[in-house]
Amino acid sequence: MDFSSLDPLISPRSIAIIGASDEPSRIGGRPISYMQQRGFKGVIYPVNPKRQTVQGITAYADVASLPGVPDVGIVAVPAESAVEAIDALGRKGCKAAIVFTAGFAEVDEAGAAMQDRMVAAAKRHSMRLLGPNCLGLFNDSIGFYPTFTASFDSGWPVPGGRIGIASQSGAYGTHLFSLARDRNIGAGIVVTTGNEGEVALGDVLGWMAQSPDIDVICSYAEGIRESEKFLAALSLARANRKPVVMMKVGRSELGGAAAQSHTASIAGDDAITDAVLQEFGVVRARNTEELLDVAYAAQKRIYPAYNTLGVMTVSGGAGVLISDAADAVGFPMPAMPQPAQDKLRSLISFCAPRNPVDCTAQAINQIELVGEFTRSMAADGGYASCLIFFSQVGGSRTVAPKIRAQLKTVMDEHPDRLWALSIIAPPDMIREYEADGFLVFEDPTRAVTALHAMGRFGVAFAKAETVAGILPKVSLPASTPSEAEGKRILAAAGVPAVPERGCADVEAAVKAALDFGFPVVLKILSPDILHKSEIGGVLLDIESEAAVREGFATLIERAGKRAPSAKLEGVLVAKQIKGAVEMALGMVRDPVFGPVAMVGLGGIFIEVLKDVTFRRCPFDIAEAEAMIRGLKGFPLLDGIRGRKPADVRALAQALANLSAFAAAAGPQLISIDINPLLVLPAGEGAFAADAVLEIGPMESAK
Amino acid sequence: MDFSSLDPLISPRSIAIIGASDEPSRIGGRPISYMQQRGFKGVIYPVNPKRQTVQGITAYADVASLPGVPDVGIVAVPAESAVEAIDALGRKGCKAAIVFTAGFAEVDEAGAAMQDRMVAAAKRHSMRLLGPNCLGLFNDSIGFYPTFTASFDSGWPVPGGRIGIASQSGAYGTHLFSLARDRNIGAGIVVTTGNEGEVALGDVLGWMAQSPDIDVICSYAEGIRESEKFLAALSLARANRKPVVMMKVGRSELGGAAAQSHTASIAGDDAITDAVLQEFGVVRARNTEELLDVAYAAQKRIYPAYNTLGVMTVSGGAGVLISDAADAVGFPMPAMPQPAQDKLRSLISFCAPRNPVDCTAQAINQIELVGEFTRSMAADGGYASCLIFFSQVGGSRTVAPKIRAQLKTVMDEHPDRLWALSIIAPPDMIREYEADGFLVFEDPTRAVTALHAMGRFGVAFAKAETVAGILPKVSLPASTPSEAEGKRILAAAGVPAVPERGCADVEAAVKAALDFGFPVVLKILSPDILHKSEIGGVLLDIESEAAVREGFATLIERAGKRAPSAKLEGVLVAKQIKGAVEMALGMVRDPVFGPVAMVGLGGIFIEVLKDVTFRRCPFDIAEAEAMIRGLKGFPLLDGIRGRKPADVRALAQALANLSAFAAAAGPQLISIDINPLLVLPAGEGAFAADAVLEIGPMESAK
Repeated sequence: MDFSSLDPLISPRSIAIIGASDEPSRIGGRPISYMQQRGFKGVIYPVNPKRQTVQGITAYADVASLPGVPDVGIVAVPAESAVEAIDALGRKGCKAAIVFTAGFAEVDEAGAAMQDRMVAAAKRHSMRLLGPNCLGLFNDSIGFYPTFTASFDSGWPVPGGRIGIASQSGAYGTHLFSLARDRNIGAGIVVTTGNEGEVALGDVLGWMAQSPDIDVICSYAEGIRESEKFLAALSLARANRKPVVMMKVGRSELGGAAAQSHTASIAGDDAITDAVLQEFGVVRARNTEELLDVAYAAQKRIYPAYNTLGVMTVSGGAGVLISDAADAVGFPMPAMPQPAQDKLRSLISFCAPRNPVDCTAQAINQIELVGEFTRSMAADGGYASCLIFFSQVGGSRTVAPKIRAQLKTVMDEHPDRLWALSIIAPPDMIREYEADGFLVFEDPTRAVTALHAMGRFGVAFAKAETVAGILPKVSLPASTPSEAEGKRILAAAGVPAVPERGCADVEAAVKAALDFGFPVVLKILSPDILHKSEIGGVLLDIESEAAVREGFATLIERAGKRAPSAKLEGVLVAKQIKGAVEMALGMVRDPVFGPVAMVGLGGIFIEVLKDVTFRRCPFDIAEAEAMIRGLKGFPLLDGIRGRKPADVRALAQALANLSAFAAAAGPQLISIDINPLLVLPAGEGAFAADAVLEIGPMESAK
Repeated sequence: MDFSSLDPLISPRSIAIIGASDEPSRIGGRPISYMQQRGFKGVIYPVNPKRQTVQGITAYADVASLPGVPDVGIVAVPAESAVEAIDALGRKGCKAAIVFTAGFAEVDEAGAAMQDRMVAAAKRHSMRLLGPNCLGLFNDSIGFYPTFTASFDSGWPVPGGRIGIASQSGAYGTHLFSLARDRNIGAGIVVTTGNEGEVALGDVLGWMAQSPDIDVICSYAEGIRESEKFLAALSLARANRKPVVMMKVGRSELGGAAAQSHTASIAGDDAITDAVLQEFGVVRARNTEELLDVAYAAQKRIYPAYNTLGVMTVSGGAGVLISDAADAVGFPMPAMPQPAQDKLRSLISFCAPRNPVDCTAQAINQIELVGEFTRSMAADGGYASCLIFFSQVGGSRTVAPKIRAQLKTVMDEHPDRLWALSIIAPPDMIREYEADGFLVFEDPTRAVTALHAMGRFGVAFAKAETVAGILPKVSLPASTPSEAEGKRILAAAGVPAVPERGCADVEAAVKAALDFGFPVVLKILSPDILHKSEIGGVLLDIESEAAVREGFATLIERAGKRAPSAKLEGVLVAKQIKGAVEMALGMVRDPVFGPVAMVGLGGIFIEVLKDVTFRRCPFDIAEAEAMIRGLKGFPLLDGIRGRKPADVRALAQALANLSAFAAAAGPQLISIDINPLLVLPAGEGAFAADAVLEIGPMESAK
């Protein structure tokens, strides 16, 4: 997917402003004022029927009169005129528009209809349209400032910033930008998408993923609208090794149909969004601060696929605190090799040389030891991330220059590492450390979170894109099949069922039971009886031929009495499996992200604890196994209390096969619910005991 | 418990410095230099045998020569001399000492022995001793600065600060102080406890809890040593309505004996510490930033027992973000009353009036609407906490004064509320908002966490101290009793067991079964057979008199074959209970906090998920019910899947009774393990099915 159609929107050479104002503080005046202040190199065409010039630039009465075709039109006129302005721009040959105007879909139905007309006009002319009801954007590298935000009252962006911000909320996007700027973090391109009448977040993410001016992408999202572009954008960002850090807030609007499905409603759609973000290595920040911390660290462009943390402190207390924080996010802190520990101890006998390494205040008194210790951590410890806690000592005017000299030397020897400092220092000193190449955090736990995220990016970048295996050919029945038929379909797809056989008469049932071996389960077989147990139509623990004969008669009799109108086809004989771990497998069709598979442990794990994992279909067995191992209840599969470990591989294979089937089946397949799937001890397999395939009407297919 | 014996340590009128240095940058020189700069009003006696004066003050050759008795002695001499200095101070009549000197228990066994000698000397003279190996303390209100920290290079404490910091780590304590000062948060008293040879964290917390100069207590702890003082301090702080916010890091040292107990090792000692902190309403901060945010907000001394959050924004996006954050911590955001919503909509038709209230940019254009909206939130919404998100608008030089005027009026009408702003503004403007009385946060999610903590304090302060009911009289057997005996003891204590009866012969067994009603369980009865099921000594589902006779014979026969040397006492007949929820109840003796009760759901909840709650014994039924309702698996007791709700009240009563029994039993009672405790549907009771009381030897009793 190519996102270059947004070039005229974000990187234009010429612009028109419909509703241009001579007053630099007005909405139609600010963009011109900003662009003049920031030296926009392109042509500016103010459109204002009442003035000859606007802020010193020749103005034009209307779009038609412009002497050239603008790459982009900025629309700052009332809603009624805005629709017409888009049409005028389109007729002129303009390929993009930014609509500040509010009063559209965010207000009422009439506004929504007007927005639809405006978007239709844009599409007619093949224009890209940002907004309406958006705060615009800016691209500082070319001085392009089509926005009416007041953020610049307190300063322009940090020069040369290679972070891009894509935000659905204008206010929050500029809040983010301002906080970044105040922390000296360079965000050079900020785009707010407002109502997303046409251009959606996915477009902007995709453009940033392919832009040579952007290294790191920050995003704020409330709802994902266009899945195809959104997914393509994330995929492109990953392929281009550009980290995406995102705040996704609010209950997803995706809901709708998916919420009707039992499986999806268990965890809520947010779990599906979460799974999709994780699939592409997007780091989801819990708050603004974390988002900026991660973006700040990501600017180094060091993304270790195997990330380890080495910690050096001048305080035992801080070491404990940092170890706790690392443990909480699962950031490994391997110990220093023993010879290195011995060496450090020979330098300072009271030091703690393991990791966290406590060099004690002694290293400050004998400053070359700071170099020795950090060098050993980088060279001998081999840590991908090095965090050094110097607190106020690092900010001392007398000591800091000496510390810097020591650390800089070691850092220059190991430029491939992430080097972070936790110090308390005045801003000018922090800038100096940063100029040396250090990441600087006051709070060491925030440093841990940010450094850990770099490894998460590294893992995502290193993981080869799942090669889409050839999907199986699937032909679905016309409507929801019987349980037996559903299981046959799934078995053919590689999700085997418990051995079972439909038996029209008692002799067939006896033969099936003898074939499978006792005990067996007997179930009444009828297309008209959906909930067999409610009519007493299931018999467990059938241990002998005589019991099969007796059970067969019992079931037919019960069905005759309790469901007299049901058409009976006989009895289903199934092997009864004991001692297996009960799992639930499923698939739902998410209205945004398509078929999504789910796995969880059965019973209370799914009912009470919502302990399930989702992933978009299809995926391979390695991914399936990772999903299974991520369950809180995984120990139950892993041989707890001296039991034999369960056949996780068979379970993973069934899950991967289910995902391929779901991906191949198309939109008619609404959901699959396998509960329980019985997982036997390792090597003995996993079998669906109960399965429902829900098939939608043909019309639901695209 | 009275903590005033620390007065001479923290608020002395006269001091001696052993090892006083004329050089203000040396360890023995800094305290004198600091006290002179900060105008300490008391008498300073430098002790230095080599000088007539130290930093301009008359010096003395030794402690004996001092013309008066110092309230406290500061010891800054090498370890060998430090022990002697303590003795000299004690002989002089001094009642407190602060020992900077390192080289004691933190180093090796010899150092530990030397520390023991020093502490013994202090105790001999009834002196309180802070340290050794500590960074000292300061009490800015009297200019008392017995510390050698370099923190003041970058500034003195904010004047009049009423926050106290008690830290085991010197480096981290001053890190915390420096961060507080840089945020203009006033910490006037900071005490670091170092090796805690004598004065422990609990002493310092207790002193701060009773000090009229302290409103809010911050603490950093790695391990809790003296439980009695620690608990008394937390209790006093709660009684005096002083919030305590604490970082407790690292694996607890409490471990030891408790780790041997199955129950305690399930969740780790940290869960017990957590329960104790929660019991006293201590807010446990996850990191330094959160600690300071909470302390900052707590300075307002507004602790609503029913805390609700009202949010006003100029950005829909921020409202969603804030709602997410409030939901994550369980902070209620009730909707505005409908008439108030109607009123707001009549003011701005496009506003979102529910909560979060979005007043839109319109309110900025018509500034009196800011007042109208906030007034309605306070008066009509009645929120205890009001959070207003104005982002950069709140920092605009032109708009901010108007916003301040509007908000100040409303705040003055409702001074009992917590008012917080999320704005981006230069420091001088933030100070102005703060001077008006607002809490100011850049990040709205941090504001949510801090405001929510105020309600947690409020709940703790409002909760009447559990009146210790009269504990039952308990007489324990001399050693670990049989299961039947254990259950009898527990039943007498109010933890009923499943109806059962030991039967010496088969006729008695038949009678018992007929009395209880079928089905029953039969178990072999022998003091020599601990694990009955291992020898096939348990029979379930005994449904008839004939089955009782057959079962009796079977058990006696199996025991005879498989445990031939065991003394047999017959068979235990118990009512078999089906359809109950299985719980685990227990009690362990924590080496620091004494008897601690535990409750959890049985099976995987406890095995895999470690879903248990702890609380110190004793406690009442309301507390017991709160523990039960806090379990992740609680829905299983609450009638999930259409089942009848379980008898939570009976369960809570059993738990409370267990706690009273454990508290009364004394140190000989090592642990109780009831697993399962079977909880029947509401009104039908809860019964212990299996119980082990572990009794220690008499020597283990104090």
